[in-house]
Amino acid sequence: SGFVHVKNPHLDSMEEDVLYHLDLGTKTHNLPAMFGDVKFVCVGGSPNRMRAFAQFMRRELGLPGAGEELPDICAGSDRYAMYREGPVLSISHGMGIPSISIMLHELIKLLHHAKCRDVTIIRIGTSGGLGIEAGSVVITDTAVDSSFQPRFEQVVLDDVVVRSTELDKDLAEELLACSREIADFPTLIGHTMCTYDFYEGQGRLDGALCSFSSEKKLEYLRRAYDAGVRNIEMESTAFAALCGLCGLKGEFCQFYLL
Amino acid sequence: SGFVHVKNPHLDSMEEDVLYHLDLGTKTHNLPAMFGDVKFVCVGGSPNRMRAFAQFMRRELGLPGAGEELPDICAGSDRYAMYREGPVLSISHGMGIPSISIMLHELIKLLHHAKCRDVTIIRIGTSGGLGIEAGSVVITDTAVDSSFQPRFEQVVLDDVVVRSTELDKDLAEELLACSREIADFPTLIGHTMCTYDFYEGQGRLDGALCSFSSEKKLEYLRRAYDAGVRNIEMESTAFAALCGLCGLKGEFCQFYLL
Repeated sequence: SGFVHVKNPHLDSMEEDVLYHLDLGTKTHNLPAMFGDVKFVCVGGSPNRMRAFAQFMRRELGLPGAGEELPDICAGSDRYAMYREGPVLSISHGMGIPSISIMLHELIKLLHHAKCRDVTIIRIGTSGGLGIEAGSVVITDTAVDSSFQPRFEQVVLDDVVVRSTELDKDLAEELLACSREIADFPTLIGHTMCTYDFYEGQGRLDGALCSFSSEKKLEYLRRAYDAGVRNIEMESTAFAALCGLCGLKGEFCQFYLL
Repeated sequence: SGFVHVKNPHLDSMEEDVLYHLDLGTKTHNLPAMFGDVKFVCVGGSPNRMRAFAQFMRRELGLPGAGEELPDICAGSDRYAMYREGPVLSISHGMGIPSISIMLHELIKLLHHAKCRDVTIIRIGTSGGLGIEAGSVVITDTAVDSSFQPRFEQVVLDDVVVRSTELDKDLAEELLACSREIADFPTLIGHTMCTYDFYEGQGRLDGALCSFSSEKKLEYLRRAYDAGVRNIEMESTAFAALCGLCGLKGEFCQFYLL
């Protein structure tokens, strides 16, 4: 059917669904009228960048209002920022798996309540690159954890549930084909490694704590490269797992900024 | 000596230390002049709340500039917001362990470079309460994970390192004594449970995914209560582990908002 589906039997019996962190709700907002025709959701960590992206979409789609301020749909909350231009929703998610997970739970319910169909979600953001040229764009085929495994371990109460982290291969190929029209950015498909930590988890030598040598770091990153990892960031496994379970066609498309 | 210490032998040989996510650095800013006399750091998830807290501090400390806009010291970055009033620094950390960890690594280095001494750090924020009255304030004695254990598992490259999550007991008692002067807020000392997820991880029945029954949820929360847990949030174990290792006297002081 193409609808976004929630997997929660309790939702049907709830009188109202408040999407706390988005400052939206089923009783306070007409979600189908506001969002029913959304087809693309682009997400990224930084609120300023997601506003700039929405402004870019406005120009690209030839929509009116060039130069005008865009209203933040989630202005009543400072957890996330959300902008809409035509069929494109642009949302920030902060940094790390817990932060993007809260946003995705509420976004998926939003798209469900709004009766959206055939929605594609793409994370556009920055990441660390691995053995690739600075300025490259990596399109993720599979998100892997810090042991290079394609899995996301979700704690449900005190059980650990393992979820798959495959992303949409057709969409990856489609995005790669698009990239061929843009000469300036070398683009490739590869695995993306997702970590819970920016410093000790990604082999950085400049955190407040660092217990490993430069050699140990390089040895680890070499093993990651050999396992197919081409970039490192902090949200992909949770994103792949949640989107996959809820019928959202999802992709990661990340820019490696040196 | 009371100095904040970093545990990273690589830092000494670095020509410059850029605190990327705070938009500060050792070459671009005179950190000792800007921050050398900071004695208290208060952190919380929301940037708006941390600005409001800094404004409150300005009034409480009788500092000039009432009603004036406060400059965000990290304005060049939209990852975190930072305000300073007298000896008090007020910083936002976003949501979840990865987000607060990045901020804490850079904050600890900032306090180290600035040669700060005897710094106390307190998280002031909201949390879910467990078997306590709405409107209560919980001061954390120990942060525990989703299995109610006082530990934080940090992935370092691909090794898992287990760290202690004890907080400063004297500071907890001191804060409790302060609370006695304020009649409106029931205040108690208890364990704080830290999760990686707001919905499935905290037993919420209203996420996009929910595979457990209301009974199973209650049974889990009852076990948490029996283990001494009085509130649930998403940053305490990482906070306790990092502050403990770097000689920062740290506490969690959280408001349970129904």
